[in-house]
Amino acid sequence: MLKIKCTISYDGTNFHGYQVQPDKRTVQQEIEHALEKIHKGEKIHIHASGRTDTGVHAKGQTIHFETNLDIPGNSWRKALNALLPSDVYVTHAEIVSNDFHARYNVVEKEYRYFLLNTKNPDVFRRNHVYHFPYKLDIEAIQEACRYLEGTHDFTTFSSAKATVKGDKVRTLYEVSCNQDNGQIEFIFRGSGFLYNMVRILVGTLIDVGQGKISPPDIGTLLEAKDRKYAGKTAPAQGLFLWRVSY
Amino acid sequence: MLKIKCTISYDGTNFHGYQVQPDKRTVQQEIEHALEKIHKGEKIHIHASGRTDTGVHAKGQTIHFETNLDIPGNSWRKALNALLPSDVYVTHAEIVSNDFHARYNVVEKEYRYFLLNTKNPDVFRRNHVYHFPYKLDIEAIQEACRYLEGTHDFTTFSSAKATVKGDKVRTLYEVSCNQDNGQIEFIFRGSGFLYNMVRILVGTLIDVGQGKISPPDIGTLLEAKDRKYAGKTAPAQGLFLWRVSY
Repeated sequence: MLKIKCTISYDGTNFHGYQVQPDKRTVQQEIEHALEKIHKGEKIHIHASGRTDTGVHAKGQTIHFETNLDIPGNSWRKALNALLPSDVYVTHAEIVSNDFHARYNVVEKEYRYFLLNTKNPDVFRRNHVYHFPYKLDIEAIQEACRYLEGTHDFTTFSSAKATVKGDKVRTLYEVSCNQDNGQIEFIFRGSGFLYNMVRILVGTLIDVGQGKISPPDIGTLLEAKDRKYAGKTAPAQGLFLWRVSY
Repeated sequence: MLKIKCTISYDGTNFHGYQVQPDKRTVQQEIEHALEKIHKGEKIHIHASGRTDTGVHAKGQTIHFETNLDIPGNSWRKALNALLPSDVYVTHAEIVSNDFHARYNVVEKEYRYFLLNTKNPDVFRRNHVYHFPYKLDIEAIQEACRYLEGTHDFTTFSSAKATVKGDKVRTLYEVSCNQDNGQIEFIFRGSGFLYNMVRILVGTLIDVGQGKISPPDIGTLLEAKDRKYAGKTAPAQGLFLWRVSY
């Protein structure tokens, strides 16, 4: 058996998220369907670095699978792209050692969130950016970002529905916010993320930008360990799983 | 009666073009449907600067309609946007004089065409750019653009199916091509355009970029006045009606 690692990009707009669900179009189902064709009907199970929700995009999701076929890495890329629909694309494929695991070997994940902070929405980017037409204090948001970096218990910033095993302590290596011509880009790099964590962080940072929360309040929010003190969950369409490092 | 002029932006991806067709989702139908609601069931007919085909986008299409309602221009913008789906947006609305006509008063139209000239496609822009992964000689294309500017009979560059009345002489004020980081942008500004003209021009300029046609051949092609000598019709998704001037 050979193990294949693929980096994939997908537009989450027309998917019910990453993970297979009965009677729903999902990214995992499309890829497994293409692999089944390549394997002449044999079902192949893929493993991802993690799920993404309905409407969330990936620029660099990572998956792996095992195969009996002896095909070079780049040919996997071409074979899969020839079969996949136009909203999923394999940007890289390679043969990896048998101890590689797309989920368990993750060292760092990077998410980006895009906000369009202009009066008018942009019809061409409506599925890839969150249009927020109100005034935001970017410097206050940037100050709040500093309070989020480092190792913290992120219970406040994870969905109350989360069923994660173990503690909710995670380390964020980078939390940044930059504005360019009406577009605001948030970058989150960390050891791991809880369910809905990035979207709740963005929702809370928007509250900071509107003056509803002061930057130092972020420390108090972290200490509270209660979802109800954080801001709203920002909409899915602005979120991109940007990169997974191993 | 008041006459209202609106500048509208739409993502053509999920429309069967601009013009009303039975049982098809079109831009005109969506706007007329919204106007009918505002007018409590009265049917309002809108007039555009011209049609756009299935999959073609508009950043600045212009329409007009007549109304008995005495509402200020900007309130029309808000009322329509509140009712329109997320892939059509009114960027500007104003009351204009009764002799204004969105089609007959056009002084200049600008189209832009976007080509992604990179090895890999971009899943996020697949509906807004034509992915062309082969090498192109941009300087040759730019030289060919010079032969297209000015007043010419554009029969060679219009669909053989065109049913336009009168001659096919048009004046192009600007034909340009610029490359930036793998993206190629074509700009066409002119007095008027024939059916499929921009897409056939782009298809032919791609042939120039691949060395199939030399820049001075463009003059010969214009003189031939025969569609069969021009290049392929470039795909709809790269084309944007950018601006209409009155």
